[in-house]
Amino acid sequence: MLATPVGAYAALARAIAPVLQPGTIVTDVGSVKGAVVQDVGPHLPPGVDFVPAHPVAGTEHSGPDAGFAELFENRWTILTPPEGTNPAAVEKLAELWRGFGALVDVMKPPHHDMVLAVTSHLPHLIAYNIVGTANHLEAVTESEVIKYAAGGFRDFTRIAASDPVMWRDIFLTNGAAVLEMLGRFQEDLSVLTRAIRFKDGETLEKFFTRTRAIRRGIIDAGQAEPEDAKKK
Amino acid sequence: MLATPVGAYAALARAIAPVLQPGTIVTDVGSVKGAVVQDVGPHLPPGVDFVPAHPVAGTEHSGPDAGFAELFENRWTILTPPEGTNPAAVEKLAELWRGFGALVDVMKPPHHDMVLAVTSHLPHLIAYNIVGTANHLEAVTESEVIKYAAGGFRDFTRIAASDPVMWRDIFLTNGAAVLEMLGRFQEDLSVLTRAIRFKDGETLEKFFTRTRAIRRGIIDAGQAEPEDAKKK
Repeated sequence: MLATPVGAYAALARAIAPVLQPGTIVTDVGSVKGAVVQDVGPHLPPGVDFVPAHPVAGTEHSGPDAGFAELFENRWTILTPPEGTNPAAVEKLAELWRGFGALVDVMKPPHHDMVLAVTSHLPHLIAYNIVGTANHLEAVTESEVIKYAAGGFRDFTRIAASDPVMWRDIFLTNGAAVLEMLGRFQEDLSVLTRAIRFKDGETLEKFFTRTRAIRRGIIDAGQAEPEDAKKK
Repeated sequence: MLATPVGAYAALARAIAPVLQPGTIVTDVGSVKGAVVQDVGPHLPPGVDFVPAHPVAGTEHSGPDAGFAELFENRWTILTPPEGTNPAAVEKLAELWRGFGALVDVMKPPHHDMVLAVTSHLPHLIAYNIVGTANHLEAVTESEVIKYAAGGFRDFTRIAASDPVMWRDIFLTNGAAVLEMLGRFQEDLSVLTRAIRFKDGETLEKFFTRTRAIRRGIIDAGQAEPEDAKKK
C-alpha cells in the first residue's frame, strides 16, 4: 500500500517491482488516480494486480500520529481499478476498506479526478490562496487577522495547514481537472463581484439561498463534521 | 441593541428615536460598522450615545435558538465609537461584553470594515461561490459532491449555510473593502493558477508552506475551533 505524496509513486513502484510475487495486490491511498495509474502500472510485473484506492477522509494533520481508530468510519473510499483488473483483487480491497468502517465506491480514474477536483482540490487551493492573501496586506496586520479569525477565516486556515508536499504533488498531477474547475469558479465569482459592485441585492440573496440546500444534503448523508451531525 | 441584518438599521433607528431618553446608550451587533454609523447616528436625539459593536463570534446558525452560554467566551468584540462619543458610554459597553466573557477592542469604523473584509466577508463570499460552482456542474453530480464532501468541501458548505439576508446586507454595505480584498485574492490566485498550468512545483510548495505559520498563530492565540485548540 503506497502511502506517500503521489509524486514519489513512480520511483517507489520501480523500487518494489523486483520483489513482488505473482498474486500480490498493490494499492495506494493517493488523492489523484489518473496519474497514479500511469506512474505505477507499467512498472509492475505480470501476475500482480494494481487496485488504486482513495479514502476520502482525513484531517489537516499528516503522518502516523494523525491517525485515529474512527478515521474511516462512514467515509467513502473510492477504488479506481484500471481496465482488465482482476475483479477478485478489487473485491479483496473493498473488503479491507469495509473492515476499517468505510463505504466503498468504484469509478474510472478520470472521473475520480474530476469529482475530487471540485470536492477537495479546488477547496484546498482556494483556502491556501485566501490565507496567502491575508498574509501580505498593508492595511491589516497579521496580529489582527489572527485575533479576528473566528469570523470565518479560521476554517480556511485549518485546510491551508495541510501538508505542502502532498498538495504540491496533487496539483502537479491533477492540473487539467483543477484548471477546469478554477475556470468555473472564476465565472461564478465574476457574477458575485459584479453584484457587489452594482449593489444588486437580489442576485446576492438568491445565490446565498441556493447554496443552503447542498449543506442540508451533506448533513442528511452523514458526511458533515461529527459535531454538526449531532446538532442535526 | 440593534440585532437585525444591517440593511434594516436606518428604519429601526427612525422608529426607536422618538422614545429614546437622554442618557440612553444605543448599540448593535452588526458585521459592518462604517455604514451603520451613517445609517443610525443621524436619527438619534441629543443626549443619546451610539456605540456600535461587533462580537466576532457565531456559527452558521442564526436566531435566538442558535445562541449558547459560551458563545462569546474568549472571542473578540470590537467597539467602533464615532468621534466625540462619550467615553463613559464606551466603557459601559465594554464592561457588558466583558461580562459575557468577551475580549474587547476599540477601533475606527473604516479600519474595522477593512479587517473584517479579509477575516470574515471575503471567506464567506468565496465559500458561497465554491458551493455554487459545485452545484451546477455537468460532469459531477450533486450526489457525488455530497458523498465526497469530507475531502475539504464540507467546511465551505458550513460557512455557505449562513443566513442569506444577513450576508446580502453585509456585501451591500461593505462593498468597497470587499472589492479591494477580492482584487488581492485574484492577483494571488493568478500566481497559483499559472504555477499549476506550468507545473511549477517550487512555487506551489513555497506558497503552501508559508500559510502554515498563520494557522499556528491562530491556535496559539486561542482563536481556533474548540476541538482543535485541545489538540494543541
